[in-house]
Amino acid sequence: MKILLIGATGTLGTAVHKTLTSRGHDILTVGRGGGDLRCDLTDPAQITDLYERAGQLDAVVSAAGDVPFKPVTELTPDDHLAAFRGKVLSQIELVRQGIPRVAERGSFTLITGVLAREPIPTGAAASMANGAVEAFVRAAAIEIAPQRINAISPTVFTESLADYGDYFPGMPPVDLADVAQAYVRSVEGAQTGQVYAL
Amino acid sequence: MKILLIGATGTLGTAVHKTLTSRGHDILTVGRGGGDLRCDLTDPAQITDLYERAGQLDAVVSAAGDVPFKPVTELTPDDHLAAFRGKVLSQIELVRQGIPRVAERGSFTLITGVLAREPIPTGAAASMANGAVEAFVRAAAIEIAPQRINAISPTVFTESLADYGDYFPGMPPVDLADVAQAYVRSVEGAQTGQVYAL
Repeated sequence: MKILLIGATGTLGTAVHKTLTSRGHDILTVGRGGGDLRCDLTDPAQITDLYERAGQLDAVVSAAGDVPFKPVTELTPDDHLAAFRGKVLSQIELVRQGIPRVAERGSFTLITGVLAREPIPTGAAASMANGAVEAFVRAAAIEIAPQRINAISPTVFTESLADYGDYFPGMPPVDLADVAQAYVRSVEGAQTGQVYAL
Repeated sequence: MKILLIGATGTLGTAVHKTLTSRGHDILTVGRGGGDLRCDLTDPAQITDLYERAGQLDAVVSAAGDVPFKPVTELTPDDHLAAFRGKVLSQIELVRQGIPRVAERGSFTLITGVLAREPIPTGAAASMANGAVEAFVRAAAIEIAPQRINAISPTVFTESLADYGDYFPGMPPVDLADVAQAYVRSVEGAQTGQVYAL
């Protein structure tokens, strides 16, 4: 399949790239600062341009989303708007503009995260954004069929424990390779409207 | 208790007002166009002014949220931003600015809705907004304790079946009186971080 991979240069995107390539797919990588195509997904006009350059696709997979972390009392309206634009609206617009560009039975795979269901201090904007994307995925699925849409909702990566493990006490980490397999499940499988919690 | 009731003049707000009054609470009603105090919650400055006029409170309960309904392919970034400002950011800012105004063991009760878990066509922005608020409630709860926060997530009201029943085929409706009891449960009970699905 010809797959557009958003956030291809990040920790997760790199792992997803490797796994999807090993499955024989043709990957077009997208990043804000690197990859085959450059795109800032917070700008809808850049998404339009991205799809024009990418051409016809079989799947769009996203591994990109930025949200601020602060105590809930310090998260201003601008912080929540940044989380909304950086992880929610960016991915929603990727879907909306992608619908005419993706194959009839193609798919969208978005990224959310464990904070939707297991909150941590300073993570309220991230939780909000993840909950928004997961509910959108369930809703969009019933309208875009036979195209499909799923979300990948991982906990902290085993490979990131040294940097972030202290924020997730007692929560079992997940290997990047297993998260990448969830993308395979979404892209090559037949399910839709699912949130794969890892 | 002294309770600030947002959206007091709407269908749900009227029922909540009646029930909370019957429980002996002192209700300060807030609406965009009516009630004891006027406030457009999409403007953070008006929320600041609202809390200054309201004085010290025991609970804040919200029954207000506006979102656009359109096919997912027609929901523009502006539509999603309107849903975010009209139901998510408005209620989040109500909490953030309310924290110093509400009693040490006081509570916040926000409104979401069944579309977070059971999507319907044209409801993707509503689903997104409800999912965002529910995840925010779970996250804020662990940071604001001993203050509490819960969400009320009702399906279509029995009293609204004539107008909206066709959008919810086969889904059991809920009586407004039962939804109002969920607000009592949130305000007078001791739970926090809960989503009361009705």
